[in-house]
Amino acid sequence: MHEKYSYDFLYDFTLAVFRKIGCPQEHANIASKVLLSADLRGIDSHGVARLSGYVRLWETGRINPRPQIKIVHETPSTAVVDGDRGLGLIVAPYAMKVAMQKAENVGTGWVSVKNSNHFGIAGYHAMMALDQDMIGMAMTNASALVAPTFSAERMLGTNPIAVAIPAKSQPAFVADFATTTVANGKLEVAQRKKQDISLGWAQDKEGNPSTDAFAVKEGGSLLPLGGDREHASHKGYALGSIVDIFSAVLSGASYGPWAPPFPAYIPVPQNMPGQGLGHFLGAMRVDAFRPKEEFLEHMDNWIKRFRNARRTDENQPVLIPGDPERAMESVYMKEGIPLLQSVEEDLQKLGDKLEVEWDKKDKG
Amino acid sequence: MHEKYSYDFLYDFTLAVFRKIGCPQEHANIASKVLLSADLRGIDSHGVARLSGYVRLWETGRINPRPQIKIVHETPSTAVVDGDRGLGLIVAPYAMKVAMQKAENVGTGWVSVKNSNHFGIAGYHAMMALDQDMIGMAMTNASALVAPTFSAERMLGTNPIAVAIPAKSQPAFVADFATTTVANGKLEVAQRKKQDISLGWAQDKEGNPSTDAFAVKEGGSLLPLGGDREHASHKGYALGSIVDIFSAVLSGASYGPWAPPFPAYIPVPQNMPGQGLGHFLGAMRVDAFRPKEEFLEHMDNWIKRFRNARRTDENQPVLIPGDPERAMESVYMKEGIPLLQSVEEDLQKLGDKLEVEWDKKDKG
Repeated sequence: MHEKYSYDFLYDFTLAVFRKIGCPQEHANIASKVLLSADLRGIDSHGVARLSGYVRLWETGRINPRPQIKIVHETPSTAVVDGDRGLGLIVAPYAMKVAMQKAENVGTGWVSVKNSNHFGIAGYHAMMALDQDMIGMAMTNASALVAPTFSAERMLGTNPIAVAIPAKSQPAFVADFATTTVANGKLEVAQRKKQDISLGWAQDKEGNPSTDAFAVKEGGSLLPLGGDREHASHKGYALGSIVDIFSAVLSGASYGPWAPPFPAYIPVPQNMPGQGLGHFLGAMRVDAFRPKEEFLEHMDNWIKRFRNARRTDENQPVLIPGDPERAMESVYMKEGIPLLQSVEEDLQKLGDKLEVEWDKKDKG
Repeated sequence: MHEKYSYDFLYDFTLAVFRKIGCPQEHANIASKVLLSADLRGIDSHGVARLSGYVRLWETGRINPRPQIKIVHETPSTAVVDGDRGLGLIVAPYAMKVAMQKAENVGTGWVSVKNSNHFGIAGYHAMMALDQDMIGMAMTNASALVAPTFSAERMLGTNPIAVAIPAKSQPAFVADFATTTVANGKLEVAQRKKQDISLGWAQDKEGNPSTDAFAVKEGGSLLPLGGDREHASHKGYALGSIVDIFSAVLSGASYGPWAPPFPAYIPVPQNMPGQGLGHFLGAMRVDAFRPKEEFLEHMDNWIKRFRNARRTDENQPVLIPGDPERAMESVYMKEGIPLLQSVEEDLQKLGDKLEVEWDKKDKG
């Protein structure tokens, strides 16, 4: 069974690791908060499970722990931000703040980022807008694992999109999803459980649909949302492409199959057309369209009406985007965050290597 | 077999019909151009096949042929446009021009529309931005045909998204797709051919997956992109919801199941929370992010690299969004546009009713 860890314990450990590799205090705080938000929301593949991977990227010089993040071009409603090889966990919040400031000024703000790294979960960055009565959007490209419709070659990342929309009394609408049928994490779960995967999730390296949980590991690729042409995978491919273009072609990051890989032992692609990974952040003031109170009340109405949609199965409620993650966060804050044994061992080893304490006594 | 009609013939007929119902000349020109773009691009369900439906909406007072379209609220980068019950075919281009003007001024422009009607194909409006070296976006809500994940009730429209991105020498990247697995048109094709449909397209009114081409007609619903929970239909549901909220909650149109239906004989929903259908248009100047020439060259590079992705089947090229529609347009401009017999008969009847000539001799 999984051992559980308190949020505070994991946050403090993560903070100490980021400080050890040289991040200034404020950056380490933000990075830890963003990273842990993934674990809290039940997207464990993007949380502390990635911490040792970030450290390895730092060891190989691909992550700069003291980046000079700056705006390199802007208009009243847009900016391009150069992440200076910093952690995406801090570059993206910086960029989102720029977008929100522009939205304050001219109604909306849109920031494309280059020279960044993996940014945790897209939902965190989109949700930053909610406090300011804004709609937030976040997306990122990622190293290529996904084949376009009719292709057997990895050309795109899982390229998630997040959109966060505030409501009045109802919890906010928060969509956060990869543009593939499934994220890689689901294949990893099936690998661990020694189970087959559904058709429509992955294909082998010849491009044949596969039910083998190891298909991608063995040279295959993930499939875009839709799965195959019959079920409109060209739409998932179009979505992943739009994310890639907004996040990386617009900013000057490395796009498509040239996106640099997360595992540090994999060499970066040759002749990269840009720098690092890219992100795209957006913020829209609700009152740039209609009075804030009106909008928030109508969102409550929208949400309540959809919650009450006629169910197929009486025992399975119709969900609003964000419901599962919010429920998970609520449980995990109360009962602790479960970690896989392999992740515990990985973090223990990391603690040993960096001389950061991973002491079982304090987990509470 | 289908009889073919020249673009000019169909354009002139359509123009005459719009003039007959009272549209000013300029509006009738734009409306005809937008409507015919659907036929040209092979999306016949959104072209002249809809013309008699628009006329019936005019007869019942739901379409105003002489709308006073105006901006009712704005900031430097945003606006809300009231369509005054005009044809979406002219309200959306007006709104897109507003978005493009704002993009000229402050980098990007975003317009939410209320009190409008069906706007033809989303791709047309998104593509308006290309001439100005801008990225264009267009989306619209529509009358409810689609059930959320875990629901058997029609709550959302097919709610398409279009994104048009310019390139240098390569044809533009133009994505234009409904956020369902398939648009209703595919079910109509199967009905005519008396064929079954694939699983993942539709469900019956109890919420059981269906292969019956008449499932939706008989009280069922279309399924969101993904088809079922196993294949991530919650993502298609999230996308359709985002389109609904941006197009209708943001502007004051009628959202979700309250979106007014296209067929004029179906009464509008009771207690609608807003006015008419809604759209969302956006424009982003490419040089609001990076120098125009750089961006366009990188788009050429992106497109060429993806065209050269390793094919699963040597005889099936990897496509770029927009390829099929462009190929169709090229053929149809040369050889004429094929119309179904039922559509020909419908247009002939319409011509008789409005005293607009539908003369076989002039079809060329």
